Amino acid sequence: MAVVVTKYGGSSVATPDHIKKVAQRLVARKNSGDQVITVVSAMGDTTDELTDLADAITDSPHNRELDMLLSTGEQVTIALLAMAVQELGCPAISFTGAQVGILTDEVHSKARIVSIDAARVKEALENDHIVIIAGFQGTTAVVSEPPRPSVVIWPSAVAIAAGIDADVCEINSDVAGVYTADPNVVKDARKLDRISYEEMLELAASGAGVLCMRSVEFARNHGVTIYCRSSFSDESGTIVTNEENDMEQAIVAAVTHDSSEAKITIRGVEDRPGIAATLFDALAEENVNVDMVIQNISEEGLTDISFTVPHADLERAQSAVNSVIEEIGARTWVLDEDVAKISIIGGGMRTHPGVTAKMFRALADADINIDLISTSPIRLSCIIALDDAERAVCVLHKAFGLEVTSAT
Amino acid sequence: MAVVVTKYGGSSVATPDHIKKVAQRLVARKNSGDQVITVVSAMGDTTDELTDLADAITDSPHNRELDMLLSTGEQVTIALLAMAVQELGCPAISFTGAQVGILTDEVHSKARIVSIDAARVKEALENDHIVIIAGFQGTTAVVSEPPRPSVVIWPSAVAIAAGIDADVCEINSDVAGVYTADPNVVKDARKLDRISYEEMLELAASGAGVLCMRSVEFARNHGVTIYCRSSFSDESGTIVTNEENDMEQAIVAAVTHDSSEAKITIRGVEDRPGIAATLFDALAEENVNVDMVIQNISEEGLTDISFTVPHADLERAQSAVNSVIEEIGARTWVLDEDVAKISIIGGGMRTHPGVTAKMFRALADADINIDLISTSPIRLSCIIALDDAERAVCVLHKAFGLEVTSAT
Repeated sequence: MAVVVTKYGGSSVATPDHIKKVAQRLVARKNSGDQVITVVSAMGDTTDELTDLADAITDSPHNRELDMLLSTGEQVTIALLAMAVQELGCPAISFTGAQVGILTDEVHSKARIVSIDAARVKEALENDHIVIIAGFQGTTAVVSEPPRPSVVIWPSAVAIAAGIDADVCEINSDVAGVYTADPNVVKDARKLDRISYEEMLELAASGAGVLCMRSVEFARNHGVTIYCRSSFSDESGTIVTNEENDMEQAIVAAVTHDSSEAKITIRGVEDRPGIAATLFDALAEENVNVDMVIQNISEEGLTDISFTVPHADLERAQSAVNSVIEEIGARTWVLDEDVAKISIIGGGMRTHPGVTAKMFRALADADINIDLISTSPIRLSCIIALDDAERAVCVLHKAFGLEVTSAT
Repeated sequence: MAVVVTKYGGSSVATPDHIKKVAQRLVARKNSGDQVITVVSAMGDTTDELTDLADAITDSPHNRELDMLLSTGEQVTIALLAMAVQELGCPAISFTGAQVGILTDEVHSKARIVSIDAARVKEALENDHIVIIAGFQGTTAVVSEPPRPSVVIWPSAVAIAAGIDADVCEINSDVAGVYTADPNVVKDARKLDRISYEEMLELAASGAGVLCMRSVEFARNHGVTIYCRSSFSDESGTIVTNEENDMEQAIVAAVTHDSSEAKITIRGVEDRPGIAATLFDALAEENVNVDMVIQNISEEGLTDISFTVPHADLERAQSAVNSVIEEIGARTWVLDEDVAKISIIGGGMRTHPGVTAKMFRALADADINIDLISTSPIRLSCIIALDDAERAVCVLHKAFGLEVTSAT
């Protein structure tokens, strides 16, 4: 008998019919002998509708009251899902985050999940119940108080799994697993059976939308195995867990692309200490998330600095650059919005030095120009023209032999 | 400085604009020097929408999960109202019922309000906040488990006022106070400045929809003064409090009419002990709310028994009557759906014996036939034909001199 935490996102519980289907899956799982806990999000667009209500009242809601408002979305889902499970003749009980002690009470939007009342959950499980818990949605804490805080889903399913020592945390969504590339772009993309936390973190940071980084980080830090699968079918998904030394590791596990960023280049900057600090201090003050940063080799005491920022931060980034352009003695700056970041990710890259050359060669053969390059021990990212992005993904997917192979 | 609990119902907070107006009233009240607590309901039709969701899942939701679902309605309102007050520059904090300890955890739908964490509310008041609390909606407990429990609003505003020793509990609604008769029927109906708990209870039981009986009973039992006024204007309302001996008491305070009941008459019943018990046991088993009961004087050992029941209970009432009609040896029974109950209510009736005669005379002069009569020490009710109801109210309102008088 395993203790399983399953998570269903908003699209999996969008309507009463969806909720009934989730109830069927939970009951089947329990009948197979497992103890089942499930964590659910608000139905479909509920969170947007609630946010619209807040917008009609104020441009700058306090975080505590925004939490109070938005948490009603999950509370509706847990009640309906508990009813649906009960309707199938199986005992069920719903808990808000507060009822199982998930939330800290004091610092609302920065609330880290500090503790879980595991006893209450375990008692319900021992009493043969399916336990249904509201996935907490909070608001991100930001430094510079922009017009409104953005809403993120906290990794409550993973935290709950850690808190009650569950055997696995199953994330059910409309994505059936982790793929070697976006199946919408690469027709023969392959679903991975297994991927390491480190690789998954790089994937999440490079544009793969399956799991949020925070969930993966939390899982890695607390040793929670994640099983990522479809809400709508019974096919097997992808296990995210520790790297295992005894299994043969793919050199490159996956190729990702991300077109959510723009590139800014500052030209003719004096090459002396403090210049970069001044620039990036100004960007930080405007709360701009800088991703890649590249400084060219200096020629005649002048250099170029390029960096990428999310499109959402672009206005603030430009204002920050304008505020320091004189101070850093730059000639000019240019913006390129039509760029994409292509990344290859794989734990085996650490020990296989030829990967970089192979990537550049494959792109060159396809006549795709590389604009910027950045690396981590298990990732290699290039900025290229947006128009080339999907072609580049296909080229790299093929170059590293990631396609579906017929069974041998 | 007074401590004031104000209550706003669903129609007063139906939209974000309504909520902003309520916020303005609360801030004005606080700026006038009072400590302000407010209790709010779900916005407009929210409760119906949530009930529809539950209906799409199951015909028989468990009460605990129905409470979990429906309480989200109030939670949305408290968050939005807190934001609206903060937007006006005034500190505010919202609490769910659970956060201020209003709910018992064990017996959900029968939950009596057992305790309030007054310390938490008072601390927020001392810190200069307007305190906003979710009015709890629970489900009624019923004996015979009908297809679905009905939803009622519990008197949480009055209970909170009692729990924190507030000076007054202000009920704001689309009714501007307690009137001598329904202003839609009697053009010169007068708003009462003041009415006793006892009179108000009789009014509520006789068809006046201003306050629910449970709230008035709770207020009387805990000595909470209620102030009943309009959500939408600043005109003065009606105070509901203890009868005071030193003020001149109106003999008749108000006239009400109620067309929500039907009349059943059992004819030719043997006049012997146990007959009435058999009949009303059968009605109780079917969960029928019997209001008035009249048994005629026996002629030749046979009598007639008449009683009134809400239209909503009529089907069950008929089935109960049919089940015992042979056993009680009755000849036949008849149903009259087109009846109305007209009542006059006033604390002074206790000491003024001429009131009954005056009522009957006024109705007789207007050629209105009285079908059944029932009395309490401070109320006199007649069943008459539905078609005569509005005319009867006008006649009695005039006969007892309740109309608006020009200032002297």
